[in-house]
Amino acid sequence: MSDTATLSRLFSGIETDLDIVDVTFHERATSGLEMLNTASAHVLKSPGKRLRTALTLLSGKLLTYRFEKLLPMSVAFEMVHLATLVHDDIIDHATTRRGLPTVNARYGNAVAILLGDYLFAKTAGLIADVEDFRIDHLFSETVANVCEGTILELLSVRQSGVTVDHYIDRISRKTACLMSACCKGGVTLGGGSDAQIALMEQYGLNLGIAFQIIDDVLDYVGTEESIGKPAGNDLRQGLVTLPLIYALRSQQNGYVEHVDHILRAETPPDADVRDVVAWVAEGPAIDESFALARHYSARALALLSEFPASPEREVLEQLVDFVVDRSR
Amino acid sequence: MSDTATLSRLFSGIETDLDIVDVTFHERATSGLEMLNTASAHVLKSPGKRLRTALTLLSGKLLTYRFEKLLPMSVAFEMVHLATLVHDDIIDHATTRRGLPTVNARYGNAVAILLGDYLFAKTAGLIADVEDFRIDHLFSETVANVCEGTILELLSVRQSGVTVDHYIDRISRKTACLMSACCKGGVTLGGGSDAQIALMEQYGLNLGIAFQIIDDVLDYVGTEESIGKPAGNDLRQGLVTLPLIYALRSQQNGYVEHVDHILRAETPPDADVRDVVAWVAEGPAIDESFALARHYSARALALLSEFPASPEREVLEQLVDFVVDRSR
Repeated sequence: MSDTATLSRLFSGIETDLDIVDVTFHERATSGLEMLNTASAHVLKSPGKRLRTALTLLSGKLLTYRFEKLLPMSVAFEMVHLATLVHDDIIDHATTRRGLPTVNARYGNAVAILLGDYLFAKTAGLIADVEDFRIDHLFSETVANVCEGTILELLSVRQSGVTVDHYIDRISRKTACLMSACCKGGVTLGGGSDAQIALMEQYGLNLGIAFQIIDDVLDYVGTEESIGKPAGNDLRQGLVTLPLIYALRSQQNGYVEHVDHILRAETPPDADVRDVVAWVAEGPAIDESFALARHYSARALALLSEFPASPEREVLEQLVDFVVDRSR
Repeated sequence: MSDTATLSRLFSGIETDLDIVDVTFHERATSGLEMLNTASAHVLKSPGKRLRTALTLLSGKLLTYRFEKLLPMSVAFEMVHLATLVHDDIIDHATTRRGLPTVNARYGNAVAILLGDYLFAKTAGLIADVEDFRIDHLFSETVANVCEGTILELLSVRQSGVTVDHYIDRISRKTACLMSACCKGGVTLGGGSDAQIALMEQYGLNLGIAFQIIDDVLDYVGTEESIGKPAGNDLRQGLVTLPLIYALRSQQNGYVEHVDHILRAETPPDADVRDVVAWVAEGPAIDESFALARHYSARALALLSEFPASPEREVLEQLVDFVVDRSR
């Protein structure tokens, strides 16, 4: 079954509400200024997997489903995610995302900086609509964490000596912490106890770490068609991720120097990148990376078992498998 | 009397609380990451006039002074102001601010983008500490407005046909709206009625417009020593402000084409910029600009008269005069 078909099936119980979140997102991202609308419409053309919103709604549905509170929070978290993507693309000098030109490529860095800031501002208004100060603080801490994660990533670029611990810390902050916030926020608004809130925070964190590890594996084993960008993109940008960390551990003759050389180059030759990608993809590093992803996904599953059985718990369980088994 | 001496005298009644705001600002801008701390310490080295904080505290003191609520809001508004400055400097390719290298010049655009985002995130946490949803919405609307104002400015760069109305709309959003938010937020937390809140919102807006007009006048008549940057900086960057709009109205022979030429140039020759600056500074445009600033400052004063007389009202009145009479 394709990824899209799997997600459609998993999300069938919350489909109507996912659509309402989408519509509200578009409404709330609107400015009185043509330029901002054009830029934000551009970036909204290619929607993601709605994974964050689904996590929020499903976590809220584990207990008492209060969609009127979950709606602004879901839109806020999707919007802040979009804001960070817009800014990330400037930082990475990215020219395409999900097959479309990035905002910075199309409208310039200045507009991209301001669109990101504008979306942040709008997000704060949505969070205010939730009218729960715990969510205000969750939002602030999460965004600060994501910024710190991005700085950590920036500082580790072109460094071949990145450790697994550093990598996990970095992806925990940059990616997993927003998924964690969706789950934590959802169950908070569902009326969860402190213990239940802590469980879902950890579920989201472990799921998010597994998600990012798989993303990083796909950057080595995926095809340009499946992942929407050429394989080896991270390496080309000087970013050392888990598969490469594992591969470098093997100390295979010549490759450590080869990788160092690529990491140091501004624009490494394509042939060199392809060579290292093939080396990583064919060695044991991929299986080892999958094993670490499964370690985190198993933790996520175990945490869910503390909640009473329900259709939503079942979907959250299946999402864990999806995250590890998806092909893009 | 020097500007600094005037402000010290005006702020003597709130000096202790201004200092507490400063200290709290430094505490709350702190990250666990060295890189962010270094960059934010750098930008905090050169403090501004504390005008926004003073407006917040004085507006709050017009009615019931609740410093415990005003404190996080004041810090938040100073912090969001700093975040926008950090991002503005990237957009403007600015290399110095208040005599120090900008964050982008010193640490690169990526760090500057992330420092701005990080400060936004921290601001949201401070706003949450106020525990008043009206302030959450005020914050969100204000930041969105500032972003829109910056886009308006960006779109008007290198356009000689800017009208006075467009200019006032642009500075209302980009600069005056944050001062307005300080005053509105202050009197809201002071327990103001809807009418009083609306009055102080308008006071801040009119004061802010007068403030920015004077800033723009000083860019034509100030010395590098007094304003911390060479005169003609706006013109050099292609930004058309009120003095130039008025001067261009005179249709003086040759100058319209001369200005057009400078605006179109990436880096206009210094002699050309100096020539136009002298033309604007010596003509009636400066007096006309002062007159418009006084129109707005008179409105601000009139709005204050609706409040009962108090030492705070008196300081807010004197601040209006200071804004128009200052030399930097």
